[in-house]
Amino acid sequence: MDTTVTTKTVLHKPNAAERLASLAYADMRNVDALILDRMQSHVELIPDLARYLIEAGGKRVRPMITIACANMIGHRDEAPLKLAAAVEFIHTATLLHDDVVDESGMRRGQQAANLIWGNASSVLVGDFLFARSFSLMVEAGSMKALGILSAAASTIAEGEVRQLSAIKDTGITVDTYMDIISAKTAALFSAAAQVAGIVAARPVAEEKALESYGRELGLAFQLVDDALDYDGREKALGKSVGDDFREGKVTLPVALSLLTAADEERAFWSRVIGEGKQNEGDFETALGYMRANGTLKSTLDAARQHAANARKALCVFPNNEWRMALEDLADFVVERAY
Amino acid sequence: MDTTVTTKTVLHKPNAAERLASLAYADMRNVDALILDRMQSHVELIPDLARYLIEAGGKRVRPMITIACANMIGHRDEAPLKLAAAVEFIHTATLLHDDVVDESGMRRGQQAANLIWGNASSVLVGDFLFARSFSLMVEAGSMKALGILSAAASTIAEGEVRQLSAIKDTGITVDTYMDIISAKTAALFSAAAQVAGIVAARPVAEEKALESYGRELGLAFQLVDDALDYDGREKALGKSVGDDFREGKVTLPVALSLLTAADEERAFWSRVIGEGKQNEGDFETALGYMRANGTLKSTLDAARQHAANARKALCVFPNNEWRMALEDLADFVVERAY
Repeated sequence: MDTTVTTKTVLHKPNAAERLASLAYADMRNVDALILDRMQSHVELIPDLARYLIEAGGKRVRPMITIACANMIGHRDEAPLKLAAAVEFIHTATLLHDDVVDESGMRRGQQAANLIWGNASSVLVGDFLFARSFSLMVEAGSMKALGILSAAASTIAEGEVRQLSAIKDTGITVDTYMDIISAKTAALFSAAAQVAGIVAARPVAEEKALESYGRELGLAFQLVDDALDYDGREKALGKSVGDDFREGKVTLPVALSLLTAADEERAFWSRVIGEGKQNEGDFETALGYMRANGTLKSTLDAARQHAANARKALCVFPNNEWRMALEDLADFVVERAY
Repeated sequence: MDTTVTTKTVLHKPNAAERLASLAYADMRNVDALILDRMQSHVELIPDLARYLIEAGGKRVRPMITIACANMIGHRDEAPLKLAAAVEFIHTATLLHDDVVDESGMRRGQQAANLIWGNASSVLVGDFLFARSFSLMVEAGSMKALGILSAAASTIAEGEVRQLSAIKDTGITVDTYMDIISAKTAALFSAAAQVAGIVAARPVAEEKALESYGRELGLAFQLVDDALDYDGREKALGKSVGDDFREGKVTLPVALSLLTAADEERAFWSRVIGEGKQNEGDFETALGYMRANGTLKSTLDAARQHAANARKALCVFPNNEWRMALEDLADFVVERAY
């Protein structure tokens, strides 16, 4: 989904994300130009830090959803470009603040920004990008889209706070986990899709279908992310494997393991997650339990179900190349890196 | 400027802020109700933390400016109330993030929120309030006001980043200092005043006059704050005296001292600010230099000049009780706590 992919010699058969990226190439170049322009400031540290993260090979999945949805419904003007850039700014601001919150070490395949510039800069540059995202929405000119995206932004913060409170809590249920990822991840995916319908003034049924596509895609995306945190490859992932484990996050593979764990396994999870007492080899033990229990597989099965729901949501739209690309993206989100 | 002041027995002659607060009492109760309502969330930590800061006796100066300006120009509907609440949310979000950035110990007369709930919660609840401020602006329904406030929010972040880069820099000029406080403080004061004119659809000249009033008042406010950080009384201030000194912030009293300092004094500032090597008694020595050089007095003189400019900016408006209260507020901002 790297937007520069079409300029490289692609030797393998392009995957769904690459096909979408080449379809959206012209629009995404405009979105990138907007992003680059609106992250400028006479305060040099701001574009320096923003560029570090924004140019670090982020996949621009979220803005590409806005662009693809707008094209699918045949809406072509400036508004979706501005909203796509705004969506990427909200996402980038969230990443900068998350790095401070999570104390993570890697982000997008490189050292997290807060380790280089410090927490204070990450907080403030995040605020700057967040503010600029709203300026972009003002330019897009739709009060309704502004309402959707500001609501999504507060929902994201709620999800992050809830996740923070759930750290080390081995009593987290599957429902609570799903609530958390609906808020912290799926809310922005769904808003990214929905606003494309809003600025095109589509009927409510279509707007709802877009919202549903984004939400289901976001859920699939996060479920896969949480599985990959256990069995992904660091290079493909662009971030550390095992971060969630070390931070004591109870993601679905852990919550499912806890559902069926016998005494010995339960004691293990209580120690490593509940008490946060982790020794060398514990991550491998955790992975062993998950493979034995099939909880990583169940997590991916859940992701596949949400990807299928995303696909289904698009059935109300004309069957054009954009719709096909969006449908394939849903499958790709699950199969990536496997 | 405590909004509950009219319910207490006021034994002294009310000051300008108290007179404005009693004039704005009914509107500010509505603003407070909006603030209380919009900071709600099913994630309990959010209202708990927000309430801690919002109910801690903040003076609501900024929203009161919006309310007073709207009344001065005779505009009475829901929009100024929503925008006033939005302005207070932006301010509160900034305070929460500042506490993380500055590692300050006290805020509004009590322990800073990040020391109780942790940095992560302060960052995320700040984000939540920031997002909710934009939802309130959407309710207010003015795209132009949204543009002004989102621009102010990115300017504030720029000012904060610039202040961060200027820490321990004894080469900061008076111009740079004024640029920093224009951005980090005056931008929100000016937006708070200007949006009242925007939603009332006043002529450009009046809108500019409001913007100018807010900006000049904000500059006076920050200049006094920076002087009070050296010679204020902790209780009246509601925050620690000497914070700027300990953090190595080059505020106007320091920048002016450096302009005229002889070798011995220059060496002192280089050590305590430039190198951040502070010993017991250094704060008192700094205060001694400032009193001898008259730089605290010069800072207050500059504040008085900006307060006078603020007063002057209102001359285009009808001479009603609201205009008088806003004029008196400008003087009060300088004389408070002295």
